[in-house]
Amino acid sequence: MATNQSKEVIVTQAIVASEPLEPLKPNYSLEDVDVYPPAEGDILVEVRAAGICHTDNLLCSVPRGIHGVIYPKVGGHEGSGIVRAIGANVRSVKVGDRVLLSFYSCSSCGQCQDQHPAYCQKFQSENYPGQQGFMKLHKTDGELWSKFFGQSSFSHYSIVAEQSVINVESILNSDDELKLFAPLGCGFQTGMGIIQNITQPKLTDVIVILGMGAVGMGTLMTAKIHDCKTIVAVDRIGSRLELAEKLGATHIINTKDLKNNSLKNTIFSMFPDGVNIFVDTTGSPTLLEQALESICKLGKLVVVGVPPTGYELSFDVTRHINMGRSIVGCIEGDCVPNRDIPQMIKWYREGKFPIDRLVQYFNATDFQQAFASFKDGSVIKPVLVWT
Amino acid sequence: MATNQSKEVIVTQAIVASEPLEPLKPNYSLEDVDVYPPAEGDILVEVRAAGICHTDNLLCSVPRGIHGVIYPKVGGHEGSGIVRAIGANVRSVKVGDRVLLSFYSCSSCGQCQDQHPAYCQKFQSENYPGQQGFMKLHKTDGELWSKFFGQSSFSHYSIVAEQSVINVESILNSDDELKLFAPLGCGFQTGMGIIQNITQPKLTDVIVILGMGAVGMGTLMTAKIHDCKTIVAVDRIGSRLELAEKLGATHIINTKDLKNNSLKNTIFSMFPDGVNIFVDTTGSPTLLEQALESICKLGKLVVVGVPPTGYELSFDVTRHINMGRSIVGCIEGDCVPNRDIPQMIKWYREGKFPIDRLVQYFNATDFQQAFASFKDGSVIKPVLVWT
Repeated sequence: MATNQSKEVIVTQAIVASEPLEPLKPNYSLEDVDVYPPAEGDILVEVRAAGICHTDNLLCSVPRGIHGVIYPKVGGHEGSGIVRAIGANVRSVKVGDRVLLSFYSCSSCGQCQDQHPAYCQKFQSENYPGQQGFMKLHKTDGELWSKFFGQSSFSHYSIVAEQSVINVESILNSDDELKLFAPLGCGFQTGMGIIQNITQPKLTDVIVILGMGAVGMGTLMTAKIHDCKTIVAVDRIGSRLELAEKLGATHIINTKDLKNNSLKNTIFSMFPDGVNIFVDTTGSPTLLEQALESICKLGKLVVVGVPPTGYELSFDVTRHINMGRSIVGCIEGDCVPNRDIPQMIKWYREGKFPIDRLVQYFNATDFQQAFASFKDGSVIKPVLVWT
Repeated sequence: MATNQSKEVIVTQAIVASEPLEPLKPNYSLEDVDVYPPAEGDILVEVRAAGICHTDNLLCSVPRGIHGVIYPKVGGHEGSGIVRAIGANVRSVKVGDRVLLSFYSCSSCGQCQDQHPAYCQKFQSENYPGQQGFMKLHKTDGELWSKFFGQSSFSHYSIVAEQSVINVESILNSDDELKLFAPLGCGFQTGMGIIQNITQPKLTDVIVILGMGAVGMGTLMTAKIHDCKTIVAVDRIGSRLELAEKLGATHIINTKDLKNNSLKNTIFSMFPDGVNIFVDTTGSPTLLEQALESICKLGKLVVVGVPPTGYELSFDVTRHINMGRSIVGCIEGDCVPNRDIPQMIKWYREGKFPIDRLVQYFNATDFQQAFASFKDGSVIKPVLVWT
């Protein structure tokens, strides 16, 4: 494995996703890949760590074409690492800088100019498939779609778009923190932004969070930082709910315990006036419909968990009018990574955003074990570490 | 007809809505009615004028039970007049004060305390049916549901809830202004609040208003006051669109001219990036669905026009997430009448809210003619005047 060869092809290892053999089952394998030198505006990063997020599995398991997905590809979109080479016209980092990686945005469209990069006009077309030309299978020379979310950080070395890079050289205490902070680039940020950027709750609002993965936990920790007095964590895994309580949830609901009672009825029995802010991170159609019916007048349903492809939610419009409700779509918590990731690091150092209690590290070569722990829910945020 | 008899029953005239004989066709007749003295917290108002609003026709034409409606009743919820007697514990007006009338809110629930009276927990139960005990049919002694929206102002005299009263004694220049300002209590206020309270658009936002009745015109005038640069008026009546242009619409679309082209395609041909704020005042299912598909990333669809009973809008949740869209229900523009009605009067005096170009007066006894002009769209805001 080579290092610091800015002009030459690097042979490294990557977790390659081929087209799924079974529906909705990612087909990952560890492969030797060739990484080409960075082009203009690109950066060669030696990846130290990368969090696993549901979007990786989603976009590595849907059939070709859905959400713009193409195979074979390299996933990973919560990366961190050290800059090893830069292409022409890269201004924000120099060789040796430590960086965190987040989603790609074009910097120039109206939404980007307006500080809403998660709604960049090119978000879906650039992030979901990635690009070709930066990484090839070493043995066969087969091209890989590699700039997934501008980074494809499930590779020990990767070519990263400058727009995906947050330079944290000046705010990290050690290289080792690259492991802990890698997953700030998507899941935690999404949850943080739901509170910080999208809903901005009042202290007295009843907030219900459906699904206590990284997004849900990010929402919970940020609601706590906002001094919200009533934060309800909902999940089907007891250990997550116990952890949510430790992190500030005032109430918990285990959907496995509901038996014949619906989630909606359970919520109304606890909060007769209904819910002010309902955050769905699960994409479960049944739960989404109950969530909508659980909110109070002027309440907001924030939809962030992706449901089965093509699923449509229906609602009675007259009731929606009378209730003054809002149904709000959310991607990446409407975050500006260069603004919001340093904010989360600051909160972490103040003890308010304890992501160290939510991550578990795996050697990147043990990726199958990491993905399994993620799928069964035993680990909230597995982080793959290249050594 | 008696006046100023605080302790006695007053015999007066009212437009009584009986149960419809045909579906969705209000059954109005002018009747002598007995008005009983005001109880605690109530006010006897000599009604000077009352605007006609779609909600009158809606709630006087649906079958018994729908939206809580009961017959026979007296409609009218954009009233104005002069206080002729007050019940015990009324503090906000004295006999002789000029008042405008708006919807009822309880003043004590969480939403009311939080300055969102249109989302009062009792809004639907108190405003839509009204109450009994204040007005009876003179000849038969049959009880009427009379405190419709706290006021039932389609009566020359009416018992009004103190919570429905805005005391404008100090800000009116003449009694005659009671005619002009009567309709501020619902339709115009709703349109005003969509901009002022709910969407707060940026100068560069593309705003599309579907339906140029009082709500649409209120939205348009307020968007103009907010200096919005692109305001698109959509209607099927040419004269309304001409008026909308005079009031500040930068673009107009006549849906009658669309022929085989859809509203959505027409909008995208004019604004390739889509619409930031789409306000639907029509409740037309076909147009609502196109409205939702016409909005851009982070765009808002504000639903205010009531669609056919039971109509459900469906949307693809994944697309909603990717777009970061919001679907927002709206009633009364989230207005606080005591705050927002004086604001509209101030704007009117500054020449910015020219409702004088939108109203037409009718003697209350000519109510059939007034309702007909409203139904055929030739008059935007008919105002019934008692003389």
